[in-house]
Amino acid sequence: VIKAAIFAIGSELLEGSIVDTNSAWIGSRLVKWGINVEEVRLLPDNIDKMVASFIEAVEKYDLIVTTGGLGPTFDDLTAEVVSKVSGREYAHNEEQFQHIVKRLAKYNIVMKENHYHQAKLPEGCKTFFNSMGTAFGFAVPCGNAYIVSMPGVPFEMKPMFDDEVLPWIGELYPLRERHIRDLRIAGKPESEVDDVIRALGFPEDIDCIINVGKGDIVVKVRGFDEEKVDSYAEAIRKPFESNFIGYGDETFPVRLVRMLKEQRLTVGFAESCTGGMMGTEVTSVSGSSSVFNGSIVSYSNDIKMKVLGVPSEVLEKHGAVSAECALAMVEGALKVLGTDCAASVTGIAGPDGGTAEKPVGTVFIGISVKGRTEVQGYSFNGDRPAIRERAVKTAFAKMIDFLK
Amino acid sequence: VIKAAIFAIGSELLEGSIVDTNSAWIGSRLVKWGINVEEVRLLPDNIDKMVASFIEAVEKYDLIVTTGGLGPTFDDLTAEVVSKVSGREYAHNEEQFQHIVKRLAKYNIVMKENHYHQAKLPEGCKTFFNSMGTAFGFAVPCGNAYIVSMPGVPFEMKPMFDDEVLPWIGELYPLRERHIRDLRIAGKPESEVDDVIRALGFPEDIDCIINVGKGDIVVKVRGFDEEKVDSYAEAIRKPFESNFIGYGDETFPVRLVRMLKEQRLTVGFAESCTGGMMGTEVTSVSGSSSVFNGSIVSYSNDIKMKVLGVPSEVLEKHGAVSAECALAMVEGALKVLGTDCAASVTGIAGPDGGTAEKPVGTVFIGISVKGRTEVQGYSFNGDRPAIRERAVKTAFAKMIDFLK
Repeated sequence: VIKAAIFAIGSELLEGSIVDTNSAWIGSRLVKWGINVEEVRLLPDNIDKMVASFIEAVEKYDLIVTTGGLGPTFDDLTAEVVSKVSGREYAHNEEQFQHIVKRLAKYNIVMKENHYHQAKLPEGCKTFFNSMGTAFGFAVPCGNAYIVSMPGVPFEMKPMFDDEVLPWIGELYPLRERHIRDLRIAGKPESEVDDVIRALGFPEDIDCIINVGKGDIVVKVRGFDEEKVDSYAEAIRKPFESNFIGYGDETFPVRLVRMLKEQRLTVGFAESCTGGMMGTEVTSVSGSSSVFNGSIVSYSNDIKMKVLGVPSEVLEKHGAVSAECALAMVEGALKVLGTDCAASVTGIAGPDGGTAEKPVGTVFIGISVKGRTEVQGYSFNGDRPAIRERAVKTAFAKMIDFLK
Repeated sequence: VIKAAIFAIGSELLEGSIVDTNSAWIGSRLVKWGINVEEVRLLPDNIDKMVASFIEAVEKYDLIVTTGGLGPTFDDLTAEVVSKVSGREYAHNEEQFQHIVKRLAKYNIVMKENHYHQAKLPEGCKTFFNSMGTAFGFAVPCGNAYIVSMPGVPFEMKPMFDDEVLPWIGELYPLRERHIRDLRIAGKPESEVDDVIRALGFPEDIDCIINVGKGDIVVKVRGFDEEKVDSYAEAIRKPFESNFIGYGDETFPVRLVRMLKEQRLTVGFAESCTGGMMGTEVTSVSGSSSVFNGSIVSYSNDIKMKVLGVPSEVLEKHGAVSAECALAMVEGALKVLGTDCAASVTGIAGPDGGTAEKPVGTVFIGISVKGRTEVQGYSFNGDRPAIRERAVKTAFAKMIDFLK
C-alpha cells in the first residue's frame, strides 16, 4: 500500500487564524483511491522547519502532498523549500510566469517584483494548471518519494487535485479503489456500538473507525474486498436495526433534498434559535431550488406573529420556546411558504436565556410532512454552536424519517 | 520562549471524515499566552505511530497538547500510549471511574467493560475535570517536556482548557501575554500589502503574517512589546488608509452586532442565494437578539413576491438576479421585518444557472441603513461555497461601512 503524508503550510494555520480544511479533503480522496494517509502536519512558514519536515517525510512515505505557501508574499516559501530538498535549482518558470501575467491583467493588478518571486519553481518540475487562480501546482521526485505541492485556496486546490494531480498519481502508482461502507446509527451510546465491533473482531484487510458526531454515530468500514466489507458492515448494522439511519456519507441535507425530489415535494422552514442554519444547509446543496421555497427566520416574537401568524396568546401563555409555539410556527411556515412539508425550530441556544424550567439546550422542533404534523421537545447538551447544530440535525433526521 | 506541539488524535481526522478544529483553537490560545506552536500533527489511532510521534516530540518541544482518543471504544488509545511513553503504569483511576459512573447514570447508559477501559489513566497523573462529558483530561511529565491530553469533543475540551489546563500551564511556565494587532484591508491585492511589509523589514521581536481571506486581507502583527507592535502595525496600515476596514480579529458579524447595539438600531435580511447564511452568522453572536429581528429566505420567486412584496413586473422584466430585485428585496425586508437597517442578497452561486449575460458569481447586494439605500452588482470568483461566503462578507462589510 502506498503511504502518504499531507503537509498544510502556513503559520496562520498553527496559530489558529484559519482552520485547515484542505488536508481532510485530500485525505478522503487519497483513502478512497487506496493510498494510506499516515500523517498530517501543519507547518509554519519557516525554511528550516519546513526543510526538516520534508527530509523526515521523504524517508518514511511514498508521497508527500502539500498545500499553501505558493503565493507572491514574503512568507510563501514552499517552492523554494521543495527545490532545496529535492536538490533542484529554484528557477524562473516561463509557463508559470505567463499565467501570472495573464491573471494580473485580467484583474488590473500591477506586476511587481514579488510576482517574479512567485514565478520561481523547482527546475524541471511537473506543473499542474490552476484554472481558478495564479499559482501552479508542481511535483518533483525526491529520494524514493514524490512531493506534490498545490495552492492553499480550497477552490483553487480542489479542481487541480481532481483534474490534474490524481490522474498524475495514477500514472505513478496503480490506484485501487477502496470499497467504503459507512453506517449511521442514532440514539445509541458509542459503548454499545463498540461492543458489537469488538465481538466481531478486526479482520486484517478491513479498517473500521467509530466516529461520534453530534446526535449520531458513524461507523466507517473500508477495504479492497467489496464482499468482505459489506458483510462485516452488515454484521455491525444488524443489532441496531431500529436505530439505523442509513448508509453512506450522504449528509442529511443532501439526503433530504434527494428524497424530496424523488417524491416531488417542496419544503420550507420557520427558524428561531437556528437563525437560518436550516436554509443555509439545504441551499448548500446545488439544485435545491427545485424543492426549497424559503425559510422564515423569525428571531423576534414580532416576526413570529406578523409573518408566521403565531397567535399572541401562544407567546404570552407558553412563551416562544414551547411546543405550542413550535406547532404554530410549522403551521405558519406551511401556509406562508406554500410548501408540502415544513420544519420549525425554537429553543434556547445559550449561553444566556436559560431558566430553571427551560434551561439552555431546551429546543422544540415541529415537523410536518404530507399532512402529518408532530412537535417534540429536546434537551440538547453542549455550547451554543453545538446546540444549534444538534437542533438542525435532529430536525433533518426526523423529516427524513417521516419521508421514508 | 516555550515551544509547543499540538497533536490531534483520531484516524477519522486523517481520512477526512472530520475536520480538526481543536488544534487551531488551542493554537490561538497558546500563541496569545506567549507559547510558540511549532508543529501541529494529526495522528491515526495506531499505537506504534502514536508512540513514535510522542517520543520525537518530547525531544523537541516543552509542551505537547493532545486532543482525542479518550473515549471508551477500541480505537481510543491516548491514555495507554501516554502511559507507555512516560514510563507510567496504565492504571485504574478511581476519580475518573466515579465520574463515568455518575455520567452514565444521568443518561441511563448501562456500564460496560469498555467503560472500565476508559477509567484507566497514566498512574499518578494530574487530572482535569470534564464538566461537559465523561473523559477527564490529564497531564504527565515526560523527559524535559509535559504531555497534556484532553478529549476531542470541542465543547468538552474548550472549557477544560480555559478553566483548568491554561492555569496549570501558568504554574509550570511564566505566561507572557503577547500583544496582538490585526489589520483588515479590503480591495487591494496581497502583492501590494507585501511590498509595504518587505519595505519595512522584519524586526526580530515582531511576527508578521499575511492572511488572504475571501474578500479581504488580514495582516497579523504580534510581539511582546506593545509599543513596537503598534507602531509597526501603524506603518503597514498608513498606505492603505482608504482600504483599511478595521483592527482586531473581531469578525464581521460580531462587529455588525456591536455597532448596531451602540447605535440602538435593528436589522433584518432578505436572502436568496445565501439561503440563510446572513441570519446564521448574525445569530451565532450571542446577544444578537437585541438587534436582529429576522431574515426572509426567499429562495423561490413566489416567496419574493408574496412575503417581501417584490413586484412581479420586476421579476419578469429584470429577473430575480438584478439590481431592481435586490432593491425591492431590501425595501421589502425593511417593511416586513420592521427594522432600521436591512440587507438583501440575490445572485447565482452556481455551479448551474449561469448565462452569458449573468455568469455564475453574479451577485446583487442591497443595503439600507438609516434611510440611505444602495444597490451594487458584483462578480465573485470561486465555487458555490466561496461565492456565497463572499456575498455575505461583502454585505456585512458594506453595512459596517454605512454604519461608521
